[in-house]
Amino acid sequence: MNLVASPARLSTASNTFEQEFALRLHWSAEEDAAIEQRVEAILADVRARGDAALLEYTQRFDGLHAYGVHELALQPDELKAAFDGLPAEQREALAAAAGRIRRYHEAQKRAGGESWSFRDEDGTLLGQKVTPLDRVGIYVPGGKAAYPSSVLMNAIPAQVAGVAEIVMVVPTPQGARNPLVLAAAHVAGVTRAYTVGGAQAIAAMAYGTATIPKVDKITGPGNAYVASAKRRVFGTVGIDMIAGPSEILVLADGSTPPDWVAMDLFSQAEHDELAQSILLCPDAAYIDAVQQAIERLLPEMPRAEIIAKSLDDRGALILTRDMEEACALANRIAPEHLEVASREPHRWEPLLRHAGAIFLGAWTSESLGDYCAGPNHVLPTSGTARFSSPLGVYDFQKRTSLIEVSEQGAQGLGRIASVLARGEGLQAHARAAEMRLRGDAAPAA
Amino acid sequence: MNLVASPARLSTASNTFEQEFALRLHWSAEEDAAIEQRVEAILADVRARGDAALLEYTQRFDGLHAYGVHELALQPDELKAAFDGLPAEQREALAAAAGRIRRYHEAQKRAGGESWSFRDEDGTLLGQKVTPLDRVGIYVPGGKAAYPSSVLMNAIPAQVAGVAEIVMVVPTPQGARNPLVLAAAHVAGVTRAYTVGGAQAIAAMAYGTATIPKVDKITGPGNAYVASAKRRVFGTVGIDMIAGPSEILVLADGSTPPDWVAMDLFSQAEHDELAQSILLCPDAAYIDAVQQAIERLLPEMPRAEIIAKSLDDRGALILTRDMEEACALANRIAPEHLEVASREPHRWEPLLRHAGAIFLGAWTSESLGDYCAGPNHVLPTSGTARFSSPLGVYDFQKRTSLIEVSEQGAQGLGRIASVLARGEGLQAHARAAEMRLRGDAAPAA
Repeated sequence: MNLVASPARLSTASNTFEQEFALRLHWSAEEDAAIEQRVEAILADVRARGDAALLEYTQRFDGLHAYGVHELALQPDELKAAFDGLPAEQREALAAAAGRIRRYHEAQKRAGGESWSFRDEDGTLLGQKVTPLDRVGIYVPGGKAAYPSSVLMNAIPAQVAGVAEIVMVVPTPQGARNPLVLAAAHVAGVTRAYTVGGAQAIAAMAYGTATIPKVDKITGPGNAYVASAKRRVFGTVGIDMIAGPSEILVLADGSTPPDWVAMDLFSQAEHDELAQSILLCPDAAYIDAVQQAIERLLPEMPRAEIIAKSLDDRGALILTRDMEEACALANRIAPEHLEVASREPHRWEPLLRHAGAIFLGAWTSESLGDYCAGPNHVLPTSGTARFSSPLGVYDFQKRTSLIEVSEQGAQGLGRIASVLARGEGLQAHARAAEMRLRGDAAPAA
Repeated sequence: MNLVASPARLSTASNTFEQEFALRLHWSAEEDAAIEQRVEAILADVRARGDAALLEYTQRFDGLHAYGVHELALQPDELKAAFDGLPAEQREALAAAAGRIRRYHEAQKRAGGESWSFRDEDGTLLGQKVTPLDRVGIYVPGGKAAYPSSVLMNAIPAQVAGVAEIVMVVPTPQGARNPLVLAAAHVAGVTRAYTVGGAQAIAAMAYGTATIPKVDKITGPGNAYVASAKRRVFGTVGIDMIAGPSEILVLADGSTPPDWVAMDLFSQAEHDELAQSILLCPDAAYIDAVQQAIERLLPEMPRAEIIAKSLDDRGALILTRDMEEACALANRIAPEHLEVASREPHRWEPLLRHAGAIFLGAWTSESLGDYCAGPNHVLPTSGTARFSSPLGVYDFQKRTSLIEVSEQGAQGLGRIASVLARGEGLQAHARAAEMRLRGDAAPAA
């Protein structure tokens, strides 16, 4: 068993840095043609045959038999019972985390999720109405990667947005239910839940079946089948982002205990062999100390093999000329998680333009953000933080423009619209505006 | 030449209504396998060969020869010259429209596009930083459907968001340039422009070439090749929505002159034979009057053939039991444009939950919103208003969560995170939190 991890050691001063850096960063999701084909068939089948198809796939893939989809429903009292049955410590931790996540997302809603309007000098009203989606579906993976924290992070923003119905699906292979996941669904305000999963569950929520209602948007992580199914139903329903492997980038000035930084790198690497953990630091001696901490701490970790493989294949400890250069490199990477392990985190934060979440100062381990600090842990990966945002209340709301042109407003605007519409060769557009000009006609009062 | 338009007449009281209604609404984008294949090849070729491939495709598809892509650049002074060369009426209309669009989007930015943060009782800082994208690309169609208003509607929100570089591409078949499009680019703050188009232009902006810089997001409408290319580069860059045919739904209580409503229905139908115009009204005599107006006004319209085909194939005049039922049907349709042609628009507006934009009252023709009222004319189509929003400043910004946990905060949060992480089997996450508990270690001061 390989219990030595050797993340690449790079230096920005080296001639070969750009090349080595590009190699480390490179990652691309390969489409598996066999998966794509199977998913296409499953979607078409559930769309055509509804509940019957859903039951067959659930039997085949999860070994779970039922005579009707209603048998696969988890009733609210079952979710509550799961919560009540947890050890007190877990129950309290779940409730505390949910409370903090809710408070953060309520602040987020106040900061940008409210309707607004104004009237201009002509009495014309302009504005935007913000409304919650009617019904959303949340996919929760079953089996090994069953994360109750994901239930909180997906359902709570939807609940805060005001979504009336939150439908959760979670596969339970051979009927094995995860009590923490059910308890989290209770805490997070899930209104219906079904023990189905895979592409068949995505199809059921996107198209609706006799039992499972069609939703407006589907969020939540899943395996390659789920990701492919989400991509394919996009347009019929909304979806959140399709996540790549998880990433952490630690920007260190050498003031944080090396053990802490090593463990923060591990906490990303333990997710997945494809996860990426990178340290940027201008202090070579400190990088040595972190490497020694990695070597010393690794054997203690239950998931040491995954951590070692992730660090070997995708990890990097990068020596930079200074902190400014480290910030510039961080912007090029646009990481999902960015820790600023520095005595002066507010000196560097304004220089950091592209990241899913920024964790400031030595006390802010990424894991606190993953579970309970409050902000969402669903974050853009693979450099997409350059153009996308954490999951939030705004993902469960949509906006509608409001326009009410006054009679006076129609005079000025009508002339402008008429000229531009004729310039584009759209005469009905022009006539519609011109008809509202005074003297042309007037509405029945 | 068919100058009679016969939109379907439906009544919600009829037994066959649901069936007829579903048939009218049905529309699905068919994927053309030949187009998909050609687009895939073009993207791969431009990605591999950059400028050289872009020049070849521009020669082949647009009949435009150049020795280097720099020859295809439109310089800022050429854009300005186009603006200065317009007739005064067009110049003033363009500037007035741009001014109103800018003011609306500035209000939108103030209403939800600013960073925020707060500290909790433990001194832990939580917030969200809002930053503009670095560089965006705007696709502008050439040829028949060259719409300067689209240039304004795509570029101005990007400019208001604070995007540093706005790159525009517009094909100019046989070198024919549209002065209104160039003038609109000048007014809207486009920073670079190139006369290239099609899938090859999307590829150039998504991957970057020696001459054309890689952008972070691509917005703007285009033909089937452009739509397919945008769908394929999504993930490498951000994209806006892929639009379906345009739609208008008019909700009338009978108080607006029938000619106005007829012309508003035309102004959608004239876009495209696939466009959809629907009237919902509880007054049968008024529906007759609108139908007569349609018959009387149609022959005057230069685009009468397109209008007639659109109304015949996809139009509908629907008699409802009352206005409440009309509002409920409108929510089922979730139209791109929704006109409330009523004496009491504010009575009905709160009942309308799903629409791209709502136009209130008789004076507010959709065409005023298309050009100059201020709100964006890029709106969700095909029922996607159930889960998506008009193009806005928010599409050119992204958010980054900010978390700074205090030493005291790390004590409470650390215990919660530790319990939850161990519940999920992620021990490195737990250890990273536990290391920050007092007594475990302390940072080098």
